Amino acid sequence: MTPTTDEGGSPPPADLVAGLRREGLLDRPAADAPSDDPAPPDGTGRVLLRFAPAGREHRVPPGVSVFDAASWNGIAIDSTCGGHGTCRKCKVRVSRGDTPITSHDRRTFSEGELAAGWRLACLVSARSDLDVEVPPLVTRPKAATVGVGRQVILRPAVQKRYLELDEPSLADQRTDLRRVLDAIDDLDLHPDLHALRRLPKVLRDNDFKVTAVVVDETLIDIEPGDTTAYRYGLAFDLGTTTVVATLLDLSTGTPCGVASMLNKQQPFGGDVITRISATMMDPDAGERLRTAAQATLAELADQVLAEAGVDPGTVYEVAIAGNATMVALLLGIDPEPLGVAPFVMAHDHFPVLPATEVGLRLHPGARVVLFPALGAYVGGDIVAGMLATGMDRDKRARLFVDVGTNCEIVLSDGERLVATAAPAGPAFEGGAIRRGMRAADGAIEVVKLGETVQLGVIGDVAPMGLCGSGLVDAVAELVRVGLLDASGRFVPDEVAPAIAPTLADRLSKVGQERVFILHRPTPDAPTEDCVFLSQRDIRELQFAKAAIATGWALLCEEIGLAPGDIQQVLLAGSFGSYLSPAAAIRIGLVPKLSVLRIVSAGNVAGEGAKMVLLSSRERAGADALLEEVHYVELSDRADFNDRFVEQLAFPG
Amino acid sequence: MTPTTDEGGSPPPADLVAGLRREGLLDRPAADAPSDDPAPPDGTGRVLLRFAPAGREHRVPPGVSVFDAASWNGIAIDSTCGGHGTCRKCKVRVSRGDTPITSHDRRTFSEGELAAGWRLACLVSARSDLDVEVPPLVTRPKAATVGVGRQVILRPAVQKRYLELDEPSLADQRTDLRRVLDAIDDLDLHPDLHALRRLPKVLRDNDFKVTAVVVDETLIDIEPGDTTAYRYGLAFDLGTTTVVATLLDLSTGTPCGVASMLNKQQPFGGDVITRISATMMDPDAGERLRTAAQATLAELADQVLAEAGVDPGTVYEVAIAGNATMVALLLGIDPEPLGVAPFVMAHDHFPVLPATEVGLRLHPGARVVLFPALGAYVGGDIVAGMLATGMDRDKRARLFVDVGTNCEIVLSDGERLVATAAPAGPAFEGGAIRRGMRAADGAIEVVKLGETVQLGVIGDVAPMGLCGSGLVDAVAELVRVGLLDASGRFVPDEVAPAIAPTLADRLSKVGQERVFILHRPTPDAPTEDCVFLSQRDIRELQFAKAAIATGWALLCEEIGLAPGDIQQVLLAGSFGSYLSPAAAIRIGLVPKLSVLRIVSAGNVAGEGAKMVLLSSRERAGADALLEEVHYVELSDRADFNDRFVEQLAFPG
Repeated sequence: MTPTTDEGGSPPPADLVAGLRREGLLDRPAADAPSDDPAPPDGTGRVLLRFAPAGREHRVPPGVSVFDAASWNGIAIDSTCGGHGTCRKCKVRVSRGDTPITSHDRRTFSEGELAAGWRLACLVSARSDLDVEVPPLVTRPKAATVGVGRQVILRPAVQKRYLELDEPSLADQRTDLRRVLDAIDDLDLHPDLHALRRLPKVLRDNDFKVTAVVVDETLIDIEPGDTTAYRYGLAFDLGTTTVVATLLDLSTGTPCGVASMLNKQQPFGGDVITRISATMMDPDAGERLRTAAQATLAELADQVLAEAGVDPGTVYEVAIAGNATMVALLLGIDPEPLGVAPFVMAHDHFPVLPATEVGLRLHPGARVVLFPALGAYVGGDIVAGMLATGMDRDKRARLFVDVGTNCEIVLSDGERLVATAAPAGPAFEGGAIRRGMRAADGAIEVVKLGETVQLGVIGDVAPMGLCGSGLVDAVAELVRVGLLDASGRFVPDEVAPAIAPTLADRLSKVGQERVFILHRPTPDAPTEDCVFLSQRDIRELQFAKAAIATGWALLCEEIGLAPGDIQQVLLAGSFGSYLSPAAAIRIGLVPKLSVLRIVSAGNVAGEGAKMVLLSSRERAGADALLEEVHYVELSDRADFNDRFVEQLAFPG
Repeated sequence: MTPTTDEGGSPPPADLVAGLRREGLLDRPAADAPSDDPAPPDGTGRVLLRFAPAGREHRVPPGVSVFDAASWNGIAIDSTCGGHGTCRKCKVRVSRGDTPITSHDRRTFSEGELAAGWRLACLVSARSDLDVEVPPLVTRPKAATVGVGRQVILRPAVQKRYLELDEPSLADQRTDLRRVLDAIDDLDLHPDLHALRRLPKVLRDNDFKVTAVVVDETLIDIEPGDTTAYRYGLAFDLGTTTVVATLLDLSTGTPCGVASMLNKQQPFGGDVITRISATMMDPDAGERLRTAAQATLAELADQVLAEAGVDPGTVYEVAIAGNATMVALLLGIDPEPLGVAPFVMAHDHFPVLPATEVGLRLHPGARVVLFPALGAYVGGDIVAGMLATGMDRDKRARLFVDVGTNCEIVLSDGERLVATAAPAGPAFEGGAIRRGMRAADGAIEVVKLGETVQLGVIGDVAPMGLCGSGLVDAVAELVRVGLLDASGRFVPDEVAPAIAPTLADRLSKVGQERVFILHRPTPDAPTEDCVFLSQRDIRELQFAKAAIATGWALLCEEIGLAPGDIQQVLLAGSFGSYLSPAAAIRIGLVPKLSVLRIVSAGNVAGEGAKMVLLSSRERAGADALLEEVHYVELSDRADFNDRFVEQLAFPG
């Protein structure tokens, strides 16, 4: 998100750039937290792991465990404890490369095996290149497809175990908990107070036939009888505008309910800056914004749970992906430093919290996991998006663009990851566009110009305005038919008929400003009452797309990649999903590529949230990702202004 | 505590023993949680550590870190991180014995140093005998004397650091937390939500001059300016009868306030069994008992804080020592299984909890640490007592006796530790004694028989009854002067004058029962109105002391020690502290030793609680202790009944 408000109007480029710098958006250093890992063996900041017999190679950040690295790359290694070094099932042989021997290894392997390189994969942290032999699996774990074609091996942090325990006797006076722990000897569990309180009665009321509920290494409950079939999680995409909730069956990985609604914080302003300003002007606003965010999550939770007929008490974990400001407001952390230079976050990682902290009434032991953030303006939503699109695991050169008021851009050459944020302004949200509106009923989302004007309208009602995708379509079409020149100016009235005879009469004026009429409610309706596109609207879009294009163009130079070499462009965000690839190419929002290479990635933040619920390894992956991405500072580039101005024009 | 109620009356020995077995008190196996450490090199269950240049040897349980072992034995090793392997200051050289090399070691030492045996002491777990060279200290850490002459090196889990941080700039946009963490690089900290919420504002309102508040590895707060002088902890001895609170200055180790009061659970019954019964009969009783316990802690906290003029917000940690039932009731864990065979605990370890869980309003991040328990009837109070008396660290043969309704006995030969519980019954609390009363104003606590009867009365008011120590004194004196024979029977009236001319007339009768009058309010007051000791009272005391004496006698046999070889007897508990060593010896409550060897240890549970607040190493020690103590099952002994009957008599 960007410190541009809905007030609209746009400064000329020079001012804009100055403004950006003033707002610090062109002046942000790389992410903090330097890792103390040794200097990377090659320039890529990763070490190389070769897996046999799979015969696959993967470069991973130093320090990642061999178990995680395999998991992230779809190579399954046996494990029941989830990689805590307790189940001792994840045996691998390191045939090349040096790895220290842990005390767990000593308890698991003979001296001979240790010498031969046998280790527990979850305890081997890859600090140099390694060759790893993975024994065949006893059972192939279930996997689910989430995000953009990502295969996720199901290893939820939430586990359930049905137990039939021996009743205590004078000859066997083990504590109630010990009785449970002895039956789950592959996990190193610690009980929470709720579980301890329930233990004695639940055990005795159910003949010691119970189900243990585990999240990571915490025993959060003991349930009567066998409840292993009921294990759910809630994934939230906490957007500034829209919030989406997905209820997941953690046993199968399938979604059983999805719901979305406007963020109840809307009344405080449409973008993050207006909401941050609210907290600065009114001491109570912060608490009211927090309550509004919590109410949004709670209402969505109720919806999906009712829709799926799921008991809230069987939801044990929640994952939330949101930008830095949304997360700060949700947690009651003062967001002011995010809104004023030098734009500093309280922190980029957040503790695991009880669900009640975010206003959710689920299982008493349910917890909330929040995505870490790369920076004040590249938040957890983008980290979730990178995870869902596998930006760090795909060998192809890929460009990730989350189009919105603030536009986040990530580029990968298959090895390295670079990211930046570009302030696109409110154009894509319909803001500062005279007939602009959100992608709601009545919004024109598709525009085709031929003999006449064809409009695709959301909700099949009469057109009321233009949403972002309609705006891009309209401009792209006007450029295609020639009524708009490369500089973004309407052609003079006198030449228009020769260029587009059947459309020329739609060129008109509102006040002194030239406009193109897209829809006239009644034949004799005055232009003021029409849905039109104005000269200033077009400038707005130009500035927006120029900011974005400058962003990816400079990232390409940074990483030494020609825009034409990009093999895939992922358009993310609620807007990106509606955008027509052809139009995006035509106005130069994305590089000139085959439309087939432009992919609408959809709500990737929500997908990322689902992934961390389905796999604790993917959760670790989100943190590792953060260490890999290099934040590129646009303002370091002396040539930014020139490049920005170049990008204002529409490609020939 | 024992499943004997205040209803009084006593069965003959055979029935008593049968009763004990029925109640499972003579049928309790050893503690659970077998450690997976290798078999001990010698029979003692410990490994031998030799420290140079101190030239001291210590046997410690396998798996204990060298750092802890040194700390517990008063050998200080440099450290600022508290043994988390992060400050890398605790460098030692293992000159003999094999220890694996950790990744931390690799980052700290050169290959040469590693080969020479240099390791980080906090990461070396002693699994075999080791010789360890400890480099001289840079600064000698402060120490405090607590418990029974225990020198505790001050290493509280609660730490404060005053920080003067650089303000953020466009050139330094580290997160607020990173700024703090970078300044505390010797600790591996994680923030709680409260700290994150306070961070942005507190930093900016105080020119980035703040104090970080740390508990173990959690950053619980950021306070304005320098507050390092204010760092307090609360230690509670949560007794069934009496609760004692001590406010500790964690910087100096000095107590700044002490208060005690009756446990507000009293109305539910005088001992644990009546309180457990209450929860079984009334579904709401559990919650009311919990509230009562919380109210007791809260009221005492208010008292000591007011007394010392300390702000509750500067109390960051609480330690509670209580028996298994008191802890269960305080935490809202169903105590029923503790009160009925087979007497099972929910668990023997308890999670660290927010102070609010026990009804204490202190710092929002304040936490509660509870002592682990050895068994349903050897609870956290006894573990705390063993810690405070250093039962596991003293080379002498020592006997620890906590005298109460239930009597816990621990014996050490300087190497091994054995423990058992003996049901003494309510005699020592004044229960079931016709003129018995608690050690309150008007209670006779000292009795001397000479020409006449000399009484020591609590509160210097008219004698109203006998408390436990007075009871023991009276019986001991009657035995000494000969009015009571070794079997515990009053001598016949006709021989009494010859034995004790000036006392004989005090022998009288109440109903059919013979009594000895200790105090006659008025010269002509009827015997019924006097404070007297009855024949049945004496039987009560005989059963009680016989149960205890049988306990330690059998422990001595178990460990192969003659009672005469015991070098020190520690009498603990509110009763033990008042007991006269001479009298205890004379009635055979303790072995026949020089009175100088009988030490009143006082409120050792409370002392143990103070120790864990002053040193996180001592806290680890309490857990290690649990692994060392071997619980001895009296009912395994075929000869228990005979031994019990033998012990009924008073020593000649």
